[in-house]
Amino acid sequence: MAQQERGIRTRRAALQAAAELFAERGYEACTVSDILARAGVTKGALYFHFDSKEALARGILAEQVSVEGVLPQASKLQEWVDVGMALAHRLPGEPLLRAGARLAMDPQMQPLVSEGPWSGWNVVSSGLLAQAKARGEVLPHVDPDVTAKFVISAWTGVMIVSQIATGLADLEQQISVLFRHILPALATPAVLVQLDTAPDRGARVVAAGRRAAEEAREAAAAVSV
Amino acid sequence: MAQQERGIRTRRAALQAAAELFAERGYEACTVSDILARAGVTKGALYFHFDSKEALARGILAEQVSVEGVLPQASKLQEWVDVGMALAHRLPGEPLLRAGARLAMDPQMQPLVSEGPWSGWNVVSSGLLAQAKARGEVLPHVDPDVTAKFVISAWTGVMIVSQIATGLADLEQQISVLFRHILPALATPAVLVQLDTAPDRGARVVAAGRRAAEEAREAAAAVSV
Repeated sequence: MAQQERGIRTRRAALQAAAELFAERGYEACTVSDILARAGVTKGALYFHFDSKEALARGILAEQVSVEGVLPQASKLQEWVDVGMALAHRLPGEPLLRAGARLAMDPQMQPLVSEGPWSGWNVVSSGLLAQAKARGEVLPHVDPDVTAKFVISAWTGVMIVSQIATGLADLEQQISVLFRHILPALATPAVLVQLDTAPDRGARVVAAGRRAAEEAREAAAAVSV
Repeated sequence: MAQQERGIRTRRAALQAAAELFAERGYEACTVSDILARAGVTKGALYFHFDSKEALARGILAEQVSVEGVLPQASKLQEWVDVGMALAHRLPGEPLLRAGARLAMDPQMQPLVSEGPWSGWNVVSSGLLAQAKARGEVLPHVDPDVTAKFVISAWTGVMIVSQIATGLADLEQQISVLFRHILPALATPAVLVQLDTAPDRGARVVAAGRRAAEEAREAAAAVSV
C-alpha cells in the first residue's frame, strides 16, 4: 500500500473511531486513549493527523455539510427539500453525522459548531432557496437567508426530539412533517402541489444518487479499458 | 415569619440558586456545595426539600410548563401563538426557564425532560390547537398532536441556535419568524390575516397578563377592606 493511501486510511479510521465514541458517550467522556484503542492506530500516527481531541472534533464537524447523493432537480425547491430529507435518511446510520449532531448539542462545542456546520448549511440552504426564488418557485416575500436559518434551526430541534423520543427511528417521518408545515409559507401554489415530501423521499434520493455515481464509475472504467 | 412561609422561601431560594448555576455552568459542573453557597441556606434546610442534585433538576423542570400571564383570547390560534411568544419573551430574563432550556440539551437529563416539560408542553399546545380546530380556525387536515409536537421541536431548535448565536438576544425575533413560517399551513385564511406574530407580541402579552393579575389583586383587596 502506498504511503499516501496508508495515511488516508489512518486519518479515516481515527475520525470514524472518534465519531463512534463521541456519538455514544459525548465529547467530554472520551479520551484520546479510547479513540486510539477503537481505531487500532498508533499514537504517533494519530497525532500526525490530529494533534488533540478538539482537532478530531473539528475534523468531524468539517464532514457534516454534504449534499452527497442529492442529484440536481428541475425544481430547485424540490432539491432544497431533498437535501433535508437525504440528511434525515443518512444521519441515523452514519456515525460521523451522529457524532456531529451530538457535538452540536454540547455547549462547549458551540463556537466550533457555529463556525463550521451551521454556517456551511446556511450557505447551501440559502443558495438553493435563492435559485428557487430566481426561477419563480418561491413566493416574493421569502428572504432566503431568513428562511434557511429558520429551517436549519427547526431541523436541529426536530432531530434532538427524535433522538430523545425514539433514538432517531422516526427522524425521516418527523422531517417530512417539518417540510409539510413550512412549504405552504414558501412555495408558489403550482410548485407546492408537485413537491414530494413523503417520509421515504430521503431514501429514494440517496438511492438515485448512488446509482448515478455507480453508473459514472462504470462509464469511466469502460472508457479507460 | 411563620414556619411554613420560611419553608417556601428556602425551597424557592434553593431552586433559584440551582437554576442560576445550571444555566451558567451546566448540570454536571455544579455541586450541591456550590448551590448551598449561592442560595445561602443550610445543608439541612436544602435536604429537607431536595434530597439530591437530581431532585433540584426535577424541581426546575417541573416549573417549565407555564402559561403564566397569557390571557384567554377570542381566537384560540392567537392564544396558541401567544403561549410561544410569551415564553420567548420570558426565557432570556428568568433563570428557572434558562436552566430548564439548558437541562433540555443535556443528554443525561433527557429522560427527565421527556417525562416533564416535553409532555407538559405537548398537552398545553395540542389542547389549544384542538380548541382552535373545534372553532374552525384551523384547516381540516391539521392533526393537533402532530403539529404540537413539531412546533415544540422547532421552538427548541430555534432557541438553541439563538442561544449559540446571540445569547438569546434575538429569541423573540426568531420565534416570530417561526410562527410566520408555520401558520400558513395551519390557519384558515380569514384567521391567518388577523393573527399577530410581531416580535414584540410576547412582551405585550406578558404585560397585559401582569396588569390583569394586578387589577384582580386590587379588586380582592378592596372587597376585603
